[in-house]
Amino acid sequence: MKNEKIPYKIYLQESEMPKSWYNMRADMKKKPAPLLNPGTKEPMKAEELSAVFCDELVAQELDDTTPYIEIPEEIRGFYKMYRPSPLVRAYCLEEKLGTPAKIYYKFEGNNTSGSHKLNSAIAQAYYAKKQGLKGVTTETGAGQWGTALSMACSYFGLDCKVFMVKCSYEQKPFRREVMRTYGATVTPSPSETTNIGKKILAEHPGTTGSLGCAISEAVEVAVGSEGYRYVLGSVLNQVLLHQSVIGLETKTALDKYGIKPDMIIGCAGGGSNLGGLIAPFMGEKLRGEADYRIIAVEPASCPSFTRGIYAYDFCDTGMVCPLAKMYTLGSDFIPSANHAGGLRYHGMSSTLSELYDQKLMEAVSVKQTDVFEAAEYFARVEGILPAPESSHAIRVAIDEALKCKATGEEKTIVFGLTGTGYFDMVAYEKFHDGEMSDTIPTDEDLAVARAKLPNMD
Amino acid sequence: MKNEKIPYKIYLQESEMPKSWYNMRADMKKKPAPLLNPGTKEPMKAEELSAVFCDELVAQELDDTTPYIEIPEEIRGFYKMYRPSPLVRAYCLEEKLGTPAKIYYKFEGNNTSGSHKLNSAIAQAYYAKKQGLKGVTTETGAGQWGTALSMACSYFGLDCKVFMVKCSYEQKPFRREVMRTYGATVTPSPSETTNIGKKILAEHPGTTGSLGCAISEAVEVAVGSEGYRYVLGSVLNQVLLHQSVIGLETKTALDKYGIKPDMIIGCAGGGSNLGGLIAPFMGEKLRGEADYRIIAVEPASCPSFTRGIYAYDFCDTGMVCPLAKMYTLGSDFIPSANHAGGLRYHGMSSTLSELYDQKLMEAVSVKQTDVFEAAEYFARVEGILPAPESSHAIRVAIDEALKCKATGEEKTIVFGLTGTGYFDMVAYEKFHDGEMSDTIPTDEDLAVARAKLPNMD
Repeated sequence: MKNEKIPYKIYLQESEMPKSWYNMRADMKKKPAPLLNPGTKEPMKAEELSAVFCDELVAQELDDTTPYIEIPEEIRGFYKMYRPSPLVRAYCLEEKLGTPAKIYYKFEGNNTSGSHKLNSAIAQAYYAKKQGLKGVTTETGAGQWGTALSMACSYFGLDCKVFMVKCSYEQKPFRREVMRTYGATVTPSPSETTNIGKKILAEHPGTTGSLGCAISEAVEVAVGSEGYRYVLGSVLNQVLLHQSVIGLETKTALDKYGIKPDMIIGCAGGGSNLGGLIAPFMGEKLRGEADYRIIAVEPASCPSFTRGIYAYDFCDTGMVCPLAKMYTLGSDFIPSANHAGGLRYHGMSSTLSELYDQKLMEAVSVKQTDVFEAAEYFARVEGILPAPESSHAIRVAIDEALKCKATGEEKTIVFGLTGTGYFDMVAYEKFHDGEMSDTIPTDEDLAVARAKLPNMD
Repeated sequence: MKNEKIPYKIYLQESEMPKSWYNMRADMKKKPAPLLNPGTKEPMKAEELSAVFCDELVAQELDDTTPYIEIPEEIRGFYKMYRPSPLVRAYCLEEKLGTPAKIYYKFEGNNTSGSHKLNSAIAQAYYAKKQGLKGVTTETGAGQWGTALSMACSYFGLDCKVFMVKCSYEQKPFRREVMRTYGATVTPSPSETTNIGKKILAEHPGTTGSLGCAISEAVEVAVGSEGYRYVLGSVLNQVLLHQSVIGLETKTALDKYGIKPDMIIGCAGGGSNLGGLIAPFMGEKLRGEADYRIIAVEPASCPSFTRGIYAYDFCDTGMVCPLAKMYTLGSDFIPSANHAGGLRYHGMSSTLSELYDQKLMEAVSVKQTDVFEAAEYFARVEGILPAPESSHAIRVAIDEALKCKATGEEKTIVFGLTGTGYFDMVAYEKFHDGEMSDTIPTDEDLAVARAKLPNMD
């Protein structure tokens, strides 16, 4: 097929879909730092993690040596309902930009959750079901993860309790309604239903919540309820493992047409999409088989890679989770209230943090006004209204394509289009009305948030 | 390929996409009745229609003899951005229902407009551009058509003025915002910007508008503005022609795997989706080459096929449009305010009306509470949150599959899943909260509406 004209959309056959996930950690010489028990500062053991997570997921979390882990048949069956996702050649965008660059994007938005989150949700629900659990708890910010998990739980007949960051709960009633369609219970966080929620409400009356706080509530409920475990949609190694299906499909599609990318660009909040998209490419890089520029894009208002520090930190506000070594802004960090573009977690996947620290990938931060400008441009040219999160990657892909225009280089750019923005129209409206602004944390803001890092002496 | 296992989703290659639209009328022995000039009651001539519609679209509207009309290269290019759409084998639905029936659906919701409407919008925008126009005007109810047209106009650099039925404008601010993202101007209808709008507001202060009224406003603005024409998203022959791309792709996909459907089911408001989906199948039926059951599904609260009469009627409230012979409830008919499920036009495509009158297709009406029950069931099982409109077809597909379960028959059912329900969560919320009810027009209601039919003596 190498000389065929490349279609607008490359769809793999079902038979070409990956049968195993790829675990980047297996090919890393220096492994990501382990999760630590916040009390003893010793690496978390499987037994300890099993109180919070499903057993099989704990095994995946801790496994940094097995490169390929088989995708169970049931999960592959579910994947076939909405995957393979298309790898799109952005012919229209290229033409409009007048760039010699060749631009591809892997589009993960063609499912009702509206994003890539479903790839890990269905895996986590499957293992919970297999373990005979009654249900799972989780947090959600913008709502993509909560929606994905609701769909996955509905499929396997599991109960699903979602703690939704209060400001999102109020601003996005339709997201909440989609979760209800799939039978989930959605509680605004912080809530009076948990001890940590009550404590936070008492300390910060009127708070609109944060991801870190919603995580604490979800964990508390999971640990305190018979037959429940907690599940998380990003940051964790297991999540990156499941999301590798994005990168594996992308690589198979590129290989089919003999295309070798020069750079791979993805947005990064906790790292689930980026870690999945880059997995097989990073694998080649780690094994010395190929080289690629890999670029993480984050919001200037929540710049964990570009302005955070690499240290052990709390994963949640309530400090009930294990400590993770990661690029972090401090677990108290909350992006400015005018930030609409998602990707608002204070830390970053330990695996990606270690790869970044080893200089195997780059990071860049972008302002949300520039992100929405790129989002609207892309919507008009490529016909897909992108999620604000995904639009971070669009912004940098366009910037790189314009550099190619200036230099005349015919580079091949691949980026991850993680989802659609149909539930983000309040943010688009702000942008259209000229009411969107950028608030970038000062060095002082960051120093204040950082002061609460755990003492590791 | 005939013996291969049928995949969950059949995607055609780009090279297999239709190169021509199919015009059912060419194969009809008795043709649909012509549009009439409301003054003279004589068939509308091309010159008369050209004041309202683009020239090439007028030609398509009047052409009832050419079976295949080539799809221009530029439109095929745009189609490739979001087509071919998948023909999905509903394995999960079949299993959940425990039916021996084989169920397929053609899914048209994987584009930002969220529905099949884009198939005709891009064609109409293309011909407007080719004619050197500045822009187009239209009406939109639920918003799918307005969104689709905004996208198409943005692609070709045309101005787009949308009159949106006021109650939708207020209930669906996000739909409006998507249209703004694509640069369209959206005005709630009735408005003070047109004579007919002012008149209707004076006669019915506080009215929340109707499709018929929004059409009148859009036509008035088109006719009164230099370089503008009016475009319509349903009912017209030209729209059914463009939408035949749905049926042609469906038929190619089925043929590839040697599948012959027993019945084809589609929702029907004005007939755009149904007319497109059934086109090549009806063609075979008209030519005596094959037989299929073809079922139109409409809301019990707006039952133009099942309880309307076949007569010449006004297409709009302001009576500025040509008269069309169709199954109609009368141009003043407005479905009950509690009707949330779309498909609220008072009439039906003349072509489909004639086919129905010739008993070449069936029609059934369903209650919206039953429709939303089917919608939620489908969302949970197949992972796609359907539009209320599309869910009318789901309801009947499920009912037919359950009949097969009772009889043991292995029938093959194909239905049209026209779009997604992401902007319809207010209706879903009503359903979840048990606040959805059914108001079915009484015979008296219908008699009142019918009294205003034009005098054809």
